[in-house]
Amino acid sequence: MADADKVIIFDTTLRDGEQSPGISLDQGEKLEIAEQLARLGVDVIEAGFPVASQGDFEAVRAIAAGVRGPVICGLSRTAHADIDRCWAAIEAAERRRIHVFIATSETHMKHKLKMTPEQVKVEAASAVAHARSYTDDVEFSPEDASRSDFAFMCEVLQIAVDAGATTLNIPDTVGFGIPEEYAERLRRVREVVRGDYLISTHCHNDLGLAVANSLAGVRAGARQIECAVNGLGERAGNAALEEVVMALRTRADFYEGLDTAIRSEELARTSRLVSRLTGYPVQYNKAVVGRNAFAHESGIHQHGVLNERTTYEIMDPAAVGQGESQIVLGKHSGRHAFAATLKKMGYDLHGDALNQVFTRFKELADRKVQLTDADLEALVAEEVGDSIRYAYQLVSVECRGGSSTTPTATVVLDADGEKLEATAEGDGMVEAACRAIKDATGIEGHLTDYTVTSVTGGVDALADVALRFETEGSAMPGRGLSTDVVEASARAFLNAINRIVRVRDTGGHADDVDRPGSLRGLIRP
Amino acid sequence: MADADKVIIFDTTLRDGEQSPGISLDQGEKLEIAEQLARLGVDVIEAGFPVASQGDFEAVRAIAAGVRGPVICGLSRTAHADIDRCWAAIEAAERRRIHVFIATSETHMKHKLKMTPEQVKVEAASAVAHARSYTDDVEFSPEDASRSDFAFMCEVLQIAVDAGATTLNIPDTVGFGIPEEYAERLRRVREVVRGDYLISTHCHNDLGLAVANSLAGVRAGARQIECAVNGLGERAGNAALEEVVMALRTRADFYEGLDTAIRSEELARTSRLVSRLTGYPVQYNKAVVGRNAFAHESGIHQHGVLNERTTYEIMDPAAVGQGESQIVLGKHSGRHAFAATLKKMGYDLHGDALNQVFTRFKELADRKVQLTDADLEALVAEEVGDSIRYAYQLVSVECRGGSSTTPTATVVLDADGEKLEATAEGDGMVEAACRAIKDATGIEGHLTDYTVTSVTGGVDALADVALRFETEGSAMPGRGLSTDVVEASARAFLNAINRIVRVRDTGGHADDVDRPGSLRGLIRP
Repeated sequence: MADADKVIIFDTTLRDGEQSPGISLDQGEKLEIAEQLARLGVDVIEAGFPVASQGDFEAVRAIAAGVRGPVICGLSRTAHADIDRCWAAIEAAERRRIHVFIATSETHMKHKLKMTPEQVKVEAASAVAHARSYTDDVEFSPEDASRSDFAFMCEVLQIAVDAGATTLNIPDTVGFGIPEEYAERLRRVREVVRGDYLISTHCHNDLGLAVANSLAGVRAGARQIECAVNGLGERAGNAALEEVVMALRTRADFYEGLDTAIRSEELARTSRLVSRLTGYPVQYNKAVVGRNAFAHESGIHQHGVLNERTTYEIMDPAAVGQGESQIVLGKHSGRHAFAATLKKMGYDLHGDALNQVFTRFKELADRKVQLTDADLEALVAEEVGDSIRYAYQLVSVECRGGSSTTPTATVVLDADGEKLEATAEGDGMVEAACRAIKDATGIEGHLTDYTVTSVTGGVDALADVALRFETEGSAMPGRGLSTDVVEASARAFLNAINRIVRVRDTGGHADDVDRPGSLRGLIRP
Repeated sequence: MADADKVIIFDTTLRDGEQSPGISLDQGEKLEIAEQLARLGVDVIEAGFPVASQGDFEAVRAIAAGVRGPVICGLSRTAHADIDRCWAAIEAAERRRIHVFIATSETHMKHKLKMTPEQVKVEAASAVAHARSYTDDVEFSPEDASRSDFAFMCEVLQIAVDAGATTLNIPDTVGFGIPEEYAERLRRVREVVRGDYLISTHCHNDLGLAVANSLAGVRAGARQIECAVNGLGERAGNAALEEVVMALRTRADFYEGLDTAIRSEELARTSRLVSRLTGYPVQYNKAVVGRNAFAHESGIHQHGVLNERTTYEIMDPAAVGQGESQIVLGKHSGRHAFAATLKKMGYDLHGDALNQVFTRFKELADRKVQLTDADLEALVAEEVGDSIRYAYQLVSVECRGGSSTTPTATVVLDADGEKLEATAEGDGMVEAACRAIKDATGIEGHLTDYTVTSVTGGVDALADVALRFETEGSAMPGRGLSTDVVEASARAFLNAINRIVRVRDTGGHADDVDRPGSLRGLIRP
């Protein structure tokens, strides 16, 4: 952090990103993302908000124990019990950061905290000092900074620095900032608040300005950018990691040597992994990682008119890992070749996890002759989990339907050795298959956010289904992969139901997992 | 345009947006979008690039003849024949603008135009004067302005003003600009170039900065923003219309009364229409129009903690038209109620077009009890076309498949009274259905960009399939809607094939429609 030209990339995909409606990653998925973030070269991973739920706590602990390279950070409110819990979650990491926040805007203090400004100051001092008793790396955020009274916010920031905070983050919590204004605010903080600290940006994209605000912040002296892969996060999301990184690098002339430690050739793959595990598609025209961000890379011949690439190209697609899919395995590939290929791609699977993925690979390879690296990524994403055997396994799904036949589906499930079979009708075959699964498992609920993407683009590609199942006030995501869209949908639906059953059976509350109206709805520095 | 506080919204969805890979709108679709843009209140519609193809020419002419309200603009290179063609396309409009462009950066002049700087000056002068002989409203763009030598660019701009240009657009063609830098460039143009003209921004989003650059441009004196719905456009697209509009309005305090004439409550619907007709999904966390842009609006209970809306909300979802879907029609609704509902939604269908949509409505209503306004929007989008009867009609599709049955589909088509039937197998039922259609029609090719969205979110919602079919070097989009995903896919596939057949039969060249490597690949101010 001593390097004046180094901009620290603080990734909050697993914290702010995971707070997006409908995203609910389990521990295995969070670990997979954290490992990829380490490969990408982020400096700090905000792994979660440990006090929010038992699941959050355990996921942060697993990342702290397992992921090497980046600093592992946990978010915490000011209560000492919260900070203790945060520390317990990150303690096993090589390098640990506690990120303490409290709101400083009038509307938040009054309506949310129900505290006086004096109380907020006391809380901030006490919390930072307590966090500092655990670790030398303490970040402090005055929530809703861009709408806070400037003088009061600086008082609180000074208190935090005096109590030991080493990073001051100035969040534009509601995405209200404009570059000129946000940068000016940061410049004035630097002038007013004394001490040895680093300034950080955290910008939301409600007005489409998160990236611009973050970069303006860096020009004003910030040396850390909080951001998320694919710009995920509350509402319209946070600054997109891939965009801030590539803007700094592509315009090195303007930013005068400021740079990050990101290995940009991992950007496209990180984006795909996060998109798949969160079920949030990336739009085609998304900067840097969208499939059309480099139009020259489309499958259509360019007729030689774009020979001089620099005419329209300011970044090299290969520099962000946007290459063509490569065929890597076929139906005759054995277990050894399979494991070796995965390893080369950075997935280090063993034991049951490897067996599970290999079994699914053979099933798919039997039906689709060649599998590309993108197919394998999707396959691993489908099977990534916490290696718990789920309550229900899909034995088979058979369906029929058409424009003049009522769509009908029959599913056979295996529930711990017992065969469950059910047949149902629906408006379409997907609905029929989902109804049959509901009938077989006896679980009722409502399905939302159903999307299908084709892994490599064509109709002969694998279908990757992401959906969300709401039952009794809580919601669970599900994902499924198959050469057939109805089967992929049935798999995704059963996956969601299995997650619900698991949460119920392990005594957890389903609403630990997704309850935007409770604790998680309140925290978003 | 005399109002100093008025920022003109110049929409280029139908020109730069339509140049995105895989987007190819037909005349009926372009008209539908243009009509919605008029309802939205944009000031200028850049309706296309008339010389690019016969299809482009006719679409621009139809919009000029049919759409009232906005200025209708056509893009043109500097050749007089191009300008004549442009004028012929827009002549029928109430108010007409010709937009002339020529590149001024060294790399573009050398590698693309193969012209000397002197030649470029001569071209600019002659083209603007010729355009001005047709209309008083002439816009001039020095392509790749942000990488052009400043002094030379200003010389060319001065020549354009002296020849009669009334708007000077400063395009950041490659998305290379940074707000501070881009704004400074505009400020200096204002200082250097004499005359009575208005400055316009045109920013690409390759580094995620298009919106910020446009707004910085306005602060520097620009009074026109070129932008596109959903940020569509070449590569990572243009500045998103909805974001620039809402940033100016939400931060009226900062922008000191600068405003547009946009009716913001039409933003969400415009976004949905454009997404559907182009087949480009909008990501969930997209600012303003993404489904999660207002997290509070999600279907999940908020448990009362967000009572004070301003705590986290800077825009009212209703202000951008992001409300809940309303159930508007059921299976017992008659033709009159149907037409009246469409009319209330702004769709004024008559004759064959109304009959066609009504027939499809009854088919769907028989299978799905209630249809929402979003369903109707999708239905109209599916049927919008140029009211030509296509070569093939889908009579029926029947399929079966499953985890242990080879997916099989049988389709029956009607080709001008003759029944064509074919049965095929595939890796999945969708592929089987598409193969059967290929067999029945004898048309071979390759399918790409297959996506499914559910119109209202759930699995019981209508499935809306968008895909693209490539054959002999050209590509055509197709769309289909059904309660069943396989049927929707078959409809979309047949739709693409019908378009290909139509282009062939009308003597047009398929590559008029989508040829990014030819003329269209070259023009992107």
